[in-house]
Amino acid sequence: MRSREVRLERRPNGSPVRDDFSFGEVDLPDPGPGEVQVRNLWMAMDPAMRGRMSEARSYVPPFELGKAMEGPAVGEVVASNDPNFVPGDLVWSRLGWREGFTAPANKVEKRSRDLPPQAYLGFAGMTGLTAYVGLLHSAALKPGDTVFVSAASGGVGSVVCQIAKLKGHKVIGAAGGERKKRYLLDVLKLDGAIDYKAEPSLTKALAREAPEGIDVYFDNVGGEHLQAALAIANKYARFALCGMISQYNSTEPSAAPRNLTAAVTKELTLQGFIALNHLDKMDAFLADVRAWHAAGLLTPAETVYEGLDRSLEAFDGLFDGSGLGKMLVKIA
Amino acid sequence: MRSREVRLERRPNGSPVRDDFSFGEVDLPDPGPGEVQVRNLWMAMDPAMRGRMSEARSYVPPFELGKAMEGPAVGEVVASNDPNFVPGDLVWSRLGWREGFTAPANKVEKRSRDLPPQAYLGFAGMTGLTAYVGLLHSAALKPGDTVFVSAASGGVGSVVCQIAKLKGHKVIGAAGGERKKRYLLDVLKLDGAIDYKAEPSLTKALAREAPEGIDVYFDNVGGEHLQAALAIANKYARFALCGMISQYNSTEPSAAPRNLTAAVTKELTLQGFIALNHLDKMDAFLADVRAWHAAGLLTPAETVYEGLDRSLEAFDGLFDGSGLGKMLVKIA
Repeated sequence: MRSREVRLERRPNGSPVRDDFSFGEVDLPDPGPGEVQVRNLWMAMDPAMRGRMSEARSYVPPFELGKAMEGPAVGEVVASNDPNFVPGDLVWSRLGWREGFTAPANKVEKRSRDLPPQAYLGFAGMTGLTAYVGLLHSAALKPGDTVFVSAASGGVGSVVCQIAKLKGHKVIGAAGGERKKRYLLDVLKLDGAIDYKAEPSLTKALAREAPEGIDVYFDNVGGEHLQAALAIANKYARFALCGMISQYNSTEPSAAPRNLTAAVTKELTLQGFIALNHLDKMDAFLADVRAWHAAGLLTPAETVYEGLDRSLEAFDGLFDGSGLGKMLVKIA
Repeated sequence: MRSREVRLERRPNGSPVRDDFSFGEVDLPDPGPGEVQVRNLWMAMDPAMRGRMSEARSYVPPFELGKAMEGPAVGEVVASNDPNFVPGDLVWSRLGWREGFTAPANKVEKRSRDLPPQAYLGFAGMTGLTAYVGLLHSAALKPGDTVFVSAASGGVGSVVCQIAKLKGHKVIGAAGGERKKRYLLDVLKLDGAIDYKAEPSLTKALAREAPEGIDVYFDNVGGEHLQAALAIANKYARFALCGMISQYNSTEPSAAPRNLTAAVTKELTLQGFIALNHLDKMDAFLADVRAWHAAGLLTPAETVYEGLDRSLEAFDGLFDGSGLGKMLVKIA
C-alpha cells in the first residue's frame, strides 16, 4: 500500500505558511509480527499541533523535520499480524497527517462501530470527555443552573452546550460572528447566543441574555469572557476553567479579568482542569455519550475538509475563526 | 453611668480626617424591662467601617451623622433587667465606639471567661473563623501542604499562619516592612517570610522561600500576590480567596494577575468565601480554638491603643500599614 503524507519541512515563524510543509509518498511495509497496517479514514486538527511545529520543549516532543506530522486519527485495519486485530477493525491512533501506516499494535486502540468513526475524534473522544468532565465534575452542574459557555460553537463548547441542554438547562453561548451565533440558536437550540464581535460590552450582552444571572460558566477563552462571567455570576456560581485561548497568541497578557474580587464576594469556585487527568471517568462518559447519541440528542459540530490535500486548510481553520466545531479531514 | 462616644459628623472625602468626627458624652438610662447596661472593655477596628462612613448603599446601612458609630466590641454587664443576664457577664456586641450603652438584651451575646475578653474580637471571633474556614474548608488543607499566606501579620493572616504551623505545615508569609517580616519569623516562627516592599519580584521571592512550590494559598490581597502564588503553585494547589485588599482603594483595577492560565494548566481550585456564610462551623471552630489556646499554641497578633481617645488613631492603623495584627482599642 502506498501512503501520501504531510511533512514538516521547516519550523514556522509566526503563522505557518504553505512552504513550511511538503507532501510526500511512501510504500508501507507489510505488518511484521505484532504489527498492523491501517488505512486512515479521518483525522482531527488540534491547536496543540502548532506547538509541536516549534522547537520549544513541552510535555510532548516537537515534530521532526522532514517527517510526517502526528495527530489524532481514526482508521481501519487492512492487514494484521497481531492476534488482537483483524482486517476491518476500527482503530484510533495519533498517526494522522498520512493516508495509512504500518505500526506496532500498541500504537492503535480499537473502537466500536456503533458510533460514526469521526465521533471518536469529537464528541466521543477527548473533546467530548473535556466537555463532560468540565461541566459535570469541575463545574458540578446541578438542577436549575443557568449555564454560560464561551467558544460555544467550537469542538468542546458545542458538546458542553448540548449536554447542558439535554439535561434541561438554560444555556447561553458566546461565539464570534453571525454565522456561529445562528448555529447556536438554530442548530444547538440554545436559549441565548452572543456574537462577541458584534457586542460593545460582553458583560451587558450576557446580562441581557441571562437576566437571572449565571450559575455555571464553562471557560474556553479567559479575558473579557471571564470578566463578563464574573460580573454576571450568581452567588456560589462555579466556573470550569478549560482553556484561555484569548491568552495563547497574545504577546502582552490581557489585563482582563479586572473584577476577580467578585470571586470573593460571590463565593465563587474557579476550577481549572485537564481532561487527560480524568481518564477514570471515560467509561461513564462513553456510556452516557452512546445513550445520548442513540437518542438523537448529540449533533456533531464539525467542519469537514475532504482529502488529505486539504489538511493544511483545515489546520488554518483552527486559528482564523472560519471553522465551526471540530476541524476534521476526511482522508478516505 | 456617663458614656463618652465617637460620632460621625460628616462623610469623609477620601481618607477620613479628624474633623469628620466628634467626641460626645451621654447619660445612659437605667435598663428597662428586657434591657441590659454594658460597660465596654475592648473594641476592634474593621475596614468595613470605612464603607459605612460613606453614603453608598451596601449590605449594611451607612452610619448616621451626629450619632455614635458602631463596631465589634466586648464588654461587661453592669446592670440587667433581663432574666438571661447578670452583672459581670462578658458580652459581645456591635455597639463599639462608646464607653457603654443600655440596650435590648438581644443586642448582646454572652461569651465565656475562659478566653481573654479581646480574643472574641480576634482569634476567637469572626477574624479567627475566617482564618479557620478559609484554610481548612475552602483550601482544604491536607498533610504535607506547603502554605503561603498574604497579609500574614494581619488579623486574619496571623491566625491562618498559626493554625497551619500548629498542624505541622511549612508556612511562608508575606507582609509589608521589615518589622512585620521579623514578627512572622521571630514570633509566629514561620518557615519563610517575605517583605513584599523590599522585593523587586514577589514571584522570585516566593520561589526562593518555597523551592518545592506551594499547595495552599490564603489570599487576603489579590493582585501581585495572587500572581506570584499562581506562578509558584504546584499541580492541584488550592487557593482560598478571602479578600483582595490591593483592589479596594485603587481607582484603576489592577492588571494582575496576568497568569490566570496557570489555573488551567495546573488544575488549580480558586475558592472565594465569606466566613459569615459558614456560621455552621462556629462550634467546631470554638472547640478547636479553646484547645489550641489552652495549649499555648495561639499568639494573639494585636496592636492595642489605650483609651477611647485613641480610637481614631487605631482606625488609621488599619490603612496606613503601621499596625500589626488586629487593631484593638482598650476602652476600660
